[in-house]
Amino acid sequence: MSLIESLKWRHAVKAYDPTKKVSEEDLDKIVEAARLAPTSSGLQQYRILIVANQEIKEKLSPSVLNAEVMRDCSHVLVFAAWDRYTEERIDAIYNRTTDERDLPRGRFNSYTDKIKEIYLKETADENFVHTARQSYIGFAMAIAEAAELKVDTTPAEGFDSALVDELLELKAKGLKSVTLLYLGYRDTEKDWLSTMKKVRNPTDEFVIEYK
Amino acid sequence: MSLIESLKWRHAVKAYDPTKKVSEEDLDKIVEAARLAPTSSGLQQYRILIVANQEIKEKLSPSVLNAEVMRDCSHVLVFAAWDRYTEERIDAIYNRTTDERDLPRGRFNSYTDKIKEIYLKETADENFVHTARQSYIGFAMAIAEAAELKVDTTPAEGFDSALVDELLELKAKGLKSVTLLYLGYRDTEKDWLSTMKKVRNPTDEFVIEYK
Repeated sequence: MSLIESLKWRHAVKAYDPTKKVSEEDLDKIVEAARLAPTSSGLQQYRILIVANQEIKEKLSPSVLNAEVMRDCSHVLVFAAWDRYTEERIDAIYNRTTDERDLPRGRFNSYTDKIKEIYLKETADENFVHTARQSYIGFAMAIAEAAELKVDTTPAEGFDSALVDELLELKAKGLKSVTLLYLGYRDTEKDWLSTMKKVRNPTDEFVIEYK
Repeated sequence: MSLIESLKWRHAVKAYDPTKKVSEEDLDKIVEAARLAPTSSGLQQYRILIVANQEIKEKLSPSVLNAEVMRDCSHVLVFAAWDRYTEERIDAIYNRTTDERDLPRGRFNSYTDKIKEIYLKETADENFVHTARQSYIGFAMAIAEAAELKVDTTPAEGFDSALVDELLELKAKGLKSVTLLYLGYRDTEKDWLSTMKKVRNPTDEFVIEYK
């Protein structure tokens, strides 16, 4: 099925069948699509935390607006971005890139000097606005790949990020949670949205052409 | 080709062949993938501005870090998000949704009251952090669809948004530019990145599993 057909098929599922689990094979593909996603300067400023353990899901559930949906889904993906840019983080990525491309380390120094100059003078909060945006690119790729595989998803932004960060010990990892994605298989009886028409802005409103 | 294979194929193109243009048919599909993308509360808090006109591209080029890449590409997509939430904007979307689903207007009032309570007490800047994030979901879907169609892209975040907003008169539209996407076909001789290995964080670093 084409990506467009897959996107028409998907919707934000409102109730999952708790007996159906996403296979490891499909989970790997969903994460792989996110891993391959582009990010600003190729820095991959975020990580994906995978929670399948029911006890941890139960602990997380008070932090979200749709606790029952989370509890019944198969896996929770937490997209968590770098809490700030550091020289070490930027260098580590570019050292790997030059090593893997058989280029001398420092080959991109003029570029990394420029991005360091921009990011390192910003506050951590300003940095996080930018790193968090990058995680949405992977978030979208994961949604797209899940739809291709006919795995249901619920993007979930309504949650208490401080609580999630604490439960998953993200501060020690230099990360802050940005957005959640539930994976699983819909409970067709209880998922009230599954029978409703998908509504979007018409193209002539969504797009503005400068001719 | 699967989405994962398409994502492996793509890279951020560094030089375009200015003689090759993206067809209207492909452009429509790229925009359609973004239009179908999910957004927080289904509000589609952003628009896509399409610039194919060479004169406008020339005017925009001083605002970007990679002016030559922009000038030679086929189309520039500008993703521009709502500058703030308003009651009218939220109501307009939900009125359309209920109308298209043959539901009584106000059917989702308890929900929209809740999101209004959250967003309308925030500053415009706080609102924009959230609306801008939504535009990245469509941005990613456009990148994915272009890759499926073997249309090259360059995600371009390094630009002077104030200048772009002014040139495209976005303030009057209640929008602020967030990110750019160039579309076109690579110049294989000049695109230095096309022969280099794609480098990503290994999966065991990118993913953290909570078992």
